[in-house]
Amino acid sequence: MSAVPTTSKPAPRRGRPGYDQDAVVAAAVELFNRHGYEATSMGMIADRLGISKSAIYHHVPGKEQLLEVALDRAISELEAVLDRPAARERPVDQRLEYVLRAMVGVLVDELSNVTLLLRVRGNTPMERRAMERRRAFDHAVADLIEEAAKSGALRSDLQPRVVTRLLFGMINWITEWYRPDGPLRREELGDSVVAIAFDGLRPRG
Amino acid sequence: MSAVPTTSKPAPRRGRPGYDQDAVVAAAVELFNRHGYEATSMGMIADRLGISKSAIYHHVPGKEQLLEVALDRAISELEAVLDRPAARERPVDQRLEYVLRAMVGVLVDELSNVTLLLRVRGNTPMERRAMERRRAFDHAVADLIEEAAKSGALRSDLQPRVVTRLLFGMINWITEWYRPDGPLRREELGDSVVAIAFDGLRPRG
Repeated sequence: MSAVPTTSKPAPRRGRPGYDQDAVVAAAVELFNRHGYEATSMGMIADRLGISKSAIYHHVPGKEQLLEVALDRAISELEAVLDRPAARERPVDQRLEYVLRAMVGVLVDELSNVTLLLRVRGNTPMERRAMERRRAFDHAVADLIEEAAKSGALRSDLQPRVVTRLLFGMINWITEWYRPDGPLRREELGDSVVAIAFDGLRPRG
Repeated sequence: MSAVPTTSKPAPRRGRPGYDQDAVVAAAVELFNRHGYEATSMGMIADRLGISKSAIYHHVPGKEQLLEVALDRAISELEAVLDRPAARERPVDQRLEYVLRAMVGVLVDELSNVTLLLRVRGNTPMERRAMERRRAFDHAVADLIEEAAKSGALRSDLQPRVVTRLLFGMINWITEWYRPDGPLRREELGDSVVAIAFDGLRPRG
């Protein structure tokens, strides 16, 4: 799904001007998130890196491919969570706890890319493909919550569909406030999400 | 703070072409949320209403005033929550429960205006004033959560600052998925938020 084949990924190209594709993508994503994708030009990305526009085209075919690489990284990391044994081979409440914690981990590790993914509105076929993969991921988590509710692992007075969206809100909103250089570690954040989701804020007596 | 004084608000002006200010603001907000504020022109708003551009200027001085009115409505409704007796004169856990539920109510009732408020990035002095009021509101809720934690009404192993942001995430994210014409009523949504926030999803034995 990535425009830049990862199977035959060469060692980062590091001739002059000294930027590999990761650095170009990272600069592009930062500008996309700050100014919006439409308002960001290849010239702005080049300026940001201090290289010429033609040097950028040495690394990527165009702006849409930069967006595609970033979206693919975000969604691939989320998809990978569901493939891990801890998300597949344990009692359903433990699997759900694992998935919520791992989602927080991906959000923190891929903060800029996930931020971009959450803002995509489907303006191009490529954006719609990314949104479709995100929806499939959301549905898989919703199914897990439904399964947990049916098994009696979750309280029965709340609608699983609503619960899913509220939990996604807690997690997705992290992109709005989390600062990677702040004091809050990803593990602590994951613990807090799981603590509220499963046990709430009231002290259990 | 509103560009259009509400104290001396006249009855809706309903000569030809038959639109009062509320309808103009509503159309503008819908377009701002769909296309972005920058990408929306007064001409597009006029087209949407099926009236001429000059007819719009009969109702409002310009695009920024439409944004200002919408942001003011959203933030004023949120501020009003904190002024109500139920948010001031009861045990702290009841006040917090009231405020969370009332925030959900405002989000549902003012869905488009709050959506706009959450997307504002501070590009103009007016936008920055709206963001400042929103921040003051956020801080007041954070103080309430801190007070509840200190009083022992909330578990003590979570940081109130992190809890605040996770609860805001659950609530603010509602703007991303709630459909006013869907089957989920605002009261049920408020109950679900309060249920997860205070008691979590695990059945209490």
